[in-house]
Amino acid sequence: MTVRAAVAGASGYAGGEVLRLLLQHPEVEIGVLTAGSNAGQRLGALQPHLLPLADRVLAATTAETLAGHDVVFLALPHGQSAAVAEQLGESVLVVDMGADFRLADAADWERFYGSPHAGTWPYGLPELPGARAALEGSRRVAVPGCYPTAVSLALAPAYAAGLAEPEAVVVAASGTSGAGKAAKPHLLGSEVMGSMSPYGVGGLHRHTPEMIQNLSAAAGERVTVSFTPTLAPMPRGILATSSAKARPGVDAERLREVYEKAYADEPFVHLLPEGQWPATGAVYGSNTAQLQVAYDEAAGRVLVISAIDNLTKGTAGGAVQSMNLALGLPETSGLPVTGVAP
Amino acid sequence: MTVRAAVAGASGYAGGEVLRLLLQHPEVEIGVLTAGSNAGQRLGALQPHLLPLADRVLAATTAETLAGHDVVFLALPHGQSAAVAEQLGESVLVVDMGADFRLADAADWERFYGSPHAGTWPYGLPELPGARAALEGSRRVAVPGCYPTAVSLALAPAYAAGLAEPEAVVVAASGTSGAGKAAKPHLLGSEVMGSMSPYGVGGLHRHTPEMIQNLSAAAGERVTVSFTPTLAPMPRGILATSSAKARPGVDAERLREVYEKAYADEPFVHLLPEGQWPATGAVYGSNTAQLQVAYDEAAGRVLVISAIDNLTKGTAGGAVQSMNLALGLPETSGLPVTGVAP
Amino acid sequence: MTVRAAVAGASGYAGGEVLRLLLQHPEVEIGVLTAGSNAGQRLGALQPHLLPLADRVLAATTAETLAGHDVVFLALPHGQSAAVAEQLGESVLVVDMGADFRLADAADWERFYGSPHAGTWPYGLPELPGARAALEGSRRVAVPGCYPTAVSLALAPAYAAGLAEPEAVVVAASGTSGAGKAAKPHLLGSEVMGSMSPYGVGGLHRHTPEMIQNLSAAAGERVTVSFTPTLAPMPRGILATSSAKARPGVDAERLREVYEKAYADEPFVHLLPEGQWPATGAVYGSNTAQLQVAYDEAAGRVLVISAIDNLTKGTAGGAVQSMNLALGLPETSGLPVTGVAP
Amino acid sequence: MTVRAAVAGASGYAGGEVLRLLLQHPEVEIGVLTAGSNAGQRLGALQPHLLPLADRVLAATTAETLAGHDVVFLALPHGQSAAVAEQLGESVLVVDMGADFRLADAADWERFYGSPHAGTWPYGLPELPGARAALEGSRRVAVPGCYPTAVSLALAPAYAAGLAEPEAVVVAASGTSGAGKAAKPHLLGSEVMGSMSPYGVGGLHRHTPEMIQNLSAAAGERVTVSFTPTLAPMPRGILATSSAKARPGVDAERLREVYEKAYADEPFVHLLPEGQWPATGAVYGSNTAQLQVAYDEAAGRVLVISAIDNLTKGTAGGAVQSMNLALGLPETSGLPVTGVAP
Repeated sequence: MTVRAAVAGASGYAGGEVLRLLLQHPEVEIGVLTAGSNAGQRLGALQPHLLPLADRVLAATTAETLAGHDVVFLALPHGQSAAVAEQLGESVLVVDMGADFRLADAADWERFYGSPHAGTWPYGLPELPGARAALEGSRRVAVPGCYPTAVSLALAPAYAAGLAEPEAVVVAASGTSGAGKAAKPHLLGSEVMGSMSPYGVGGLHRHTPEMIQNLSAAAGERVTVSFTPTLAPMPRGILATSSAKARPGVDAERLREVYEKAYADEPFVHLLPEGQWPATGAVYGSNTAQLQVAYDEAAGRVLVISAIDNLTKGTAGGAVQSMNLALGLPETSGLPVTGVAP
Repeated sequence: MTVRAAVAGASGYAGGEVLRLLLQHPEVEIGVLTAGSNAGQRLGALQPHLLPLADRVLAATTAETLAGHDVVFLALPHGQSAAVAEQLGESVLVVDMGADFRLADAADWERFYGSPHAGTWPYGLPELPGARAALEGSRRVAVPGCYPTAVSLALAPAYAAGLAEPEAVVVAASGTSGAGKAAKPHLLGSEVMGSMSPYGVGGLHRHTPEMIQNLSAAAGERVTVSFTPTLAPMPRGILATSSAKARPGVDAERLREVYEKAYADEPFVHLLPEGQWPATGAVYGSNTAQLQVAYDEAAGRVLVISAIDNLTKGTAGGAVQSMNLALGLPETSGLPVTGVAP
Repeated sequence: MTVRAAVAGASGYAGGEVLRLLLQHPEVEIGVLTAGSNAGQRLGALQPHLLPLADRVLAATTAETLAGHDVVFLALPHGQSAAVAEQLGESVLVVDMGADFRLADAADWERFYGSPHAGTWPYGLPELPGARAALEGSRRVAVPGCYPTAVSLALAPAYAAGLAEPEAVVVAASGTSGAGKAAKPHLLGSEVMGSMSPYGVGGLHRHTPEMIQNLSAAAGERVTVSFTPTLAPMPRGILATSSAKARPGVDAERLREVYEKAYADEPFVHLLPEGQWPATGAVYGSNTAQLQVAYDEAAGRVLVISAIDNLTKGTAGGAVQSMNLALGLPETSGLPVTGVAP
Repeated sequence: MTVRAAVAGASGYAGGEVLRLLLQHPEVEIGVLTAGSNAGQRLGALQPHLLPLADRVLAATTAETLAGHDVVFLALPHGQSAAVAEQLGESVLVVDMGADFRLADAADWERFYGSPHAGTWPYGLPELPGARAALEGSRRVAVPGCYPTAVSLALAPAYAAGLAEPEAVVVAASGTSGAGKAAKPHLLGSEVMGSMSPYGVGGLHRHTPEMIQNLSAAAGERVTVSFTPTLAPMPRGILATSSAKARPGVDAERLREVYEKAYADEPFVHLLPEGQWPATGAVYGSNTAQLQVAYDEAAGRVLVISAIDNLTKGTAGGAVQSMNLALGLPETSGLPVTGVAP
């Protein structure tokens, strides 16, 4: 079986990463690549690391250029995916790496994005309860945000097992590629190297309602999330520290047992042996999430550290994993579990 | 007045930083410099940035070599300061940048350091309630740990004003210089660049009891602290995200008012204007702590972000500030408030 | 004596650095700060490290706002300095940190900049033969480019002493601040971290004619320079490797002797002891140039390594040093020789 | 066909990288992994990015543990490979990633390494004239040094075509992984981040005779190389700037023509389109060498920029490429040409 895939938004970081993965995918043939303001340029000038595609010329992002593919990956600014998807027809698999179809609650969408809600698609984080089944055979996928991926993998098992109070506190550090390729002064190398800073503090980050949605579903009750994202001086990676008060009766063994069981059969979620801690460097370029759990007895808290590559498991790897499930391919096809280190 | 200062442990990062600051201090003359295994070497070979001291040769760290100074800065491995201080006599100001005399509770010390408690000296964080008075005229100073400096400045006002529940959650990122200059594989540039990772998770970090001590004193009740330190790919800086559940009646205005009042007259603690967030890059090499506060209404939490340079305000700057107070010099002498950026 | 200084272009990197230095200068009072598109903003929002100036509001860059100062530092896009300088009058010291007045040869200027030549001012690199005298009492200063500073300090003594053939080969690595604060995609942190790349290869960089001018003057004959600049993943610093074929009779001793003599009395140029090599980290934030020389016998070449901070000795420090000379202040006033390390 | 491969020195950077590549190789089964002082440890504790091998335990490096494989990769300190190879027997393919068998001239070896010369094996840089044929069917391979790989690919075509005078000048920047995983103070993250520095200046670096050997062979006459390596603040990558005086009649077209022809059929050497420059970030983790050529008319020099990943094409990728040739597998098997960027 050969799957013909198009990528809309191929000049950005998410688009580039999905192409890097598709180039390794044994059953995918890369079709049309499109862009917005970069249409007409050689891909080699914009993504020089994608050597086999260097001579491809970017088309404009329209339903016409994207037609005739089995799967279309969308890496578009939010608000643009619905129109494109509609024109592509229902038989084409559309994998949206943007935010448009992630949230189930229209009011949440409108509050955080300030525009009408486009709808809700099957959610591309197969490791969450029920998610894998919803993706199988689907022709629409909403790929999760990078932070919600790291945080939901970290806390969903604890909430599903009733180990934690429904008030999560999350602080996460992200590499700069999470902020995209648009040139903004605060993202200059001169500004970010040697410096760490927070943003979207106090519940303002758009990924907050997505985390709440996932953790509440796991818990079976409303979970609040105090989420603080920070920008770290590295190109890739998310390190999330997620915690919540432990419920009575929880201890270190019980906690470990729950996580071992939750991820025993997951190819991309790896609970580290006791005593070893996740590092984003170890998952650089891979679709692996590294996890470690701790029970802080003195503070009475369940604490989970998770490390992912924001562009791979956090975006494009999750997208390809979801495509595999939707099309009935082996879930792990084309997806590295080995990081590039050091 | 000319103060003659010696530095024990001059080849390490804390020792180097205190020398960098003393070189700018109008009333200090730099005396003997000592080291452990580096004794006998030119300082220029070990600290090439300290150009005016390049030709100084390091002496061995003994009471004899350190005698005859007005102030002695100790940057020694923990457990070694007491013996040196005793031999120096009571009239010499001894500023210990190590951990030995920070904790008031001997049991805490023994649990975290595994050795007998050496005692408790006046605590070198003048911005804490009562601390400045205790430092004035003192001949012994215990310089705070770098993380406790960032976290205590962040949360003490909230606790002192009764704004927050006594269960703090802290996640902090530190530059690698906080781990010292001893060569260990996990601190190699190849390992740390492009990667973030936690350590001492679950209440195990030795700075935890120090934070609990400071925040409990401010709150007037026992405060627990869930503390997760992380290693960031930068040489200097601590960015701490500290939060706790808000007590009833707290809102954003009240929170801001408390912090404005707490630090209105402090030369080294700067509450940023609303809408601006601390960045470690902005305090690089300076003795300034940048703070910002937020009230997360949805999560019901008081949240404070603080940024310091771990080597300056977090270690050597705090040491010089304390020396100034102890000796009756202007508190700000020799201490830059301007960072080196970008 | 109090000198009143204005800075035009205070929101950029050169402007910010000159302010950082002026804040430490005992005889300077900082007057008006101006900007182009950032006029009207608080400096604290743009340069948060310049804490004492945080509440200053940027004026527009006009001759009117800049009037009434003893010295005006210009950090403007090239082509704009002449008009401003003319309006300021001849009694005001104008220190141009841009390129407009660096080149003596109008044809060179026009070839590399594509616009009419504005003229030639005394050249702000006092360590070059004859340059110090020309700066004393001058009311106009052209601050050298950052690369020409590093390279001219490296090779001028060899050429002045007749040690080298007039064909220099230079490869230099620069931190990203050398490219300025304007947001361009290739300068994003995501692009520069973990990567090195060249630019302006093959003699195209605008600093090439300036190097040729300086080295030819030192040699007393036309020197060619093959110059390759590269962008390094660090915010500051230039490391230049400069070499040329040795003339007959040159050996390691003779080479060292010439450099020791050339810089024996220079406060800001430091020839390292044999066996120690320059590192940009050691001069971070300082006005020091570190140098080391080598004679490669097998290749028959004289080789000089130089390290400077591109923003300090390479731009703003050179500017302040020149101001000191022009105004008759001590040459070293306000200029740190100690770097911020690690 | 399944090839069984052992790796000696699996806990270091070269060993880890060869494993990363072998994990993707369709015809290789990974056998025994050995180490020196790390023998007995889980690989997961030392190379956490190599997830599929996490539970492997490292054996001691002996001929016995390495016996019974089709190919043995040696990543050992220099001087140790000969003894191991001898015991493995002549039918086993031994790929030495160390220096022992690279040099043809025993005197060169002794001068730079200070020990007896072990011999000379077929040289694992197939892109050099004659090298590919010598590797086919061989049972011994000497993998080139990382710098000689970057520099020989850059200059060999120019010398083979008689375009350049036999006096090359090379300045190269390397990521820190090139210095290995042994913990040394000057390689700490705190020291290398934000800093660039040279080492082995003046012809002292051990890779110099290897470059001379390769370029002299291409030129058909003795070529001298003035080589300056520098350490850059990044984990991986080499950017080499190599130049030499152009011979009469050379111009930009002729230069480009020679390189286009030299590498037209090479899968791993990519001459970039005119106007685009190599960047190490674009070859991160890939076996690709990016090249660009320039003719500096004013300086009369041929200049070539090359970018490789020092661990991939510069070490382990070159090793696997050579293994493929030696065993008659497709030369590109298991070798990524796509980099991980940003």
